[in-house]
Amino acid sequence: MTINEGGPQGRSPDRREGVLKSNFVEMLEARWAKGNFVCVGLDTELGKIPDTVIKRGKFVPDIIASFNIDIIEATNEYACAFKPNTAFYEAHGADGFRALRQTVRYIKRAYPDIPVILDAKRGDIGNTNNGYAQMAFEQMDADAITVHPYLGAEALKPFLDKRDKGILVLTKTSNPGAGEFQDVELGNGMRMYAYVASQVAYGDWNRNGNCGLVVGATYPAELEKVRSIVGDMPILIPGIGAQGGDLEASVRAGQDSRGWGMIINSSRGIIFASSGEDFAQAAGEEARRLHDSINQIRQAA
Amino acid sequence: MTINEGGPQGRSPDRREGVLKSNFVEMLEARWAKGNFVCVGLDTELGKIPDTVIKRGKFVPDIIASFNIDIIEATNEYACAFKPNTAFYEAHGADGFRALRQTVRYIKRAYPDIPVILDAKRGDIGNTNNGYAQMAFEQMDADAITVHPYLGAEALKPFLDKRDKGILVLTKTSNPGAGEFQDVELGNGMRMYAYVASQVAYGDWNRNGNCGLVVGATYPAELEKVRSIVGDMPILIPGIGAQGGDLEASVRAGQDSRGWGMIINSSRGIIFASSGEDFAQAAGEEARRLHDSINQIRQAA
Repeated sequence: MTINEGGPQGRSPDRREGVLKSNFVEMLEARWAKGNFVCVGLDTELGKIPDTVIKRGKFVPDIIASFNIDIIEATNEYACAFKPNTAFYEAHGADGFRALRQTVRYIKRAYPDIPVILDAKRGDIGNTNNGYAQMAFEQMDADAITVHPYLGAEALKPFLDKRDKGILVLTKTSNPGAGEFQDVELGNGMRMYAYVASQVAYGDWNRNGNCGLVVGATYPAELEKVRSIVGDMPILIPGIGAQGGDLEASVRAGQDSRGWGMIINSSRGIIFASSGEDFAQAAGEEARRLHDSINQIRQAA
Repeated sequence: MTINEGGPQGRSPDRREGVLKSNFVEMLEARWAKGNFVCVGLDTELGKIPDTVIKRGKFVPDIIASFNIDIIEATNEYACAFKPNTAFYEAHGADGFRALRQTVRYIKRAYPDIPVILDAKRGDIGNTNNGYAQMAFEQMDADAITVHPYLGAEALKPFLDKRDKGILVLTKTSNPGAGEFQDVELGNGMRMYAYVASQVAYGDWNRNGNCGLVVGATYPAELEKVRSIVGDMPILIPGIGAQGGDLEASVRAGQDSRGWGMIINSSRGIIFASSGEDFAQAAGEEARRLHDSINQIRQAA
């Protein structure tokens, strides 16, 4: 097994000749070019939806979708992506599936230029992933999905083969205990998360130029390390807001050579900014505030 | 970070004082005591369901559930567990959810002593996992779930806290490319999969005595290593049959100190043994054949 750190050679994996950018990456770049780096996390917990929305409907799928649509309307101007996490929808079984589908359909119709990242954290062996790819890209019509690296590129081929779609690989996650396996030191002195990053960038993962990585804002030093390894690949950065990630350090560490490359997610901090009737307005203000802060840090850097 | 190999100290994590066995482990032990080690993998791909079943219904959930029920009736006598993989159901969106729920409800009503393992390979950060736990244990009423280790025990607490449920951690998976990260050598000379096994057995994972591991039958040497580390913990062993796993080597390597501890899965090899009208009978015969082979190997050992 060769361990290939990539970065020091200065190669940028998404600029290799002959590798096309996925539609997902192109959509992102168009948003970044406008200065949009905020990813709105649609982690719509039913119990936190304001009463004013609950009163609108009798059925769970309609209530959840109705809330999401108001959030989408209030925040789209600042968004580089929307990111529903499947866990919050699956909790409601078939109803949740319907709510998620209604939500994505709305985005596709109203804001077709904003990519949808399905934060599903999937990963099974070969053929079995066809079922998950069908769920994410046909049932849900998402533009990208998050995946676990543990089974390796060979297992994830059904995802990686989708040239148009973004495949975002968990690298250093935002949770306090992320280091249990991700920070383990390997025989050659690299840490596991850095090895994952180098494999995704220079191993069998990114042949279609459609990969990205997930690195928590709670670990800016690791984010800087990953950026130094992967060149200009997109990095989804969760953990701002409720989880306590450091925005300034994350933007400094996360920017690519173009000042782009970041998908900075906030979920609860935006969508549940207020539990009153002004919830959508409050969400829009939070998204704008985050958008402005990111751009101030970019300009100061 | 201490690396604790456990095995050499001879401690068996599921026998530590004060640790209760989960209901899942008790259910398994009752099946093992009868000589049942076959796990019937309900990987029900719609396109492979025999015409004779397709003709029965107009609706996808009913067709899938009807096929599964025939398989359950034909194989339950030999089963230690049933294991539906969520990917095959999610591919059909809300319909698939309904098919899966109907299937598990049938097992719970007709064969309440046979545990249901939801092969969902989930794993998100802290609170988000509540949604997945709700899906698996409330919506679906499963007895156990498979999870990815990459985010660490801290992230998986919402699963691990379910004392009654089994939490089966991917350790060495059955796919050809499993080694990309799982075989990486760590600074102390251990391989990653062995470190995962030792953490699950002796770290913060198994405080409720409800953990198990997943090790592919395609890697009997690694299975032997994992068994030497984890004592009598349950090991789910997929990869027999279509994937080419070696049954004899797996049974020799996978048995615990009681001659138990194995959940030997076959999916396609059983459920799609015939595409004719005799599909259920053929499934029953395949399950019996696997059951008999396992017990012959156990007795010869």
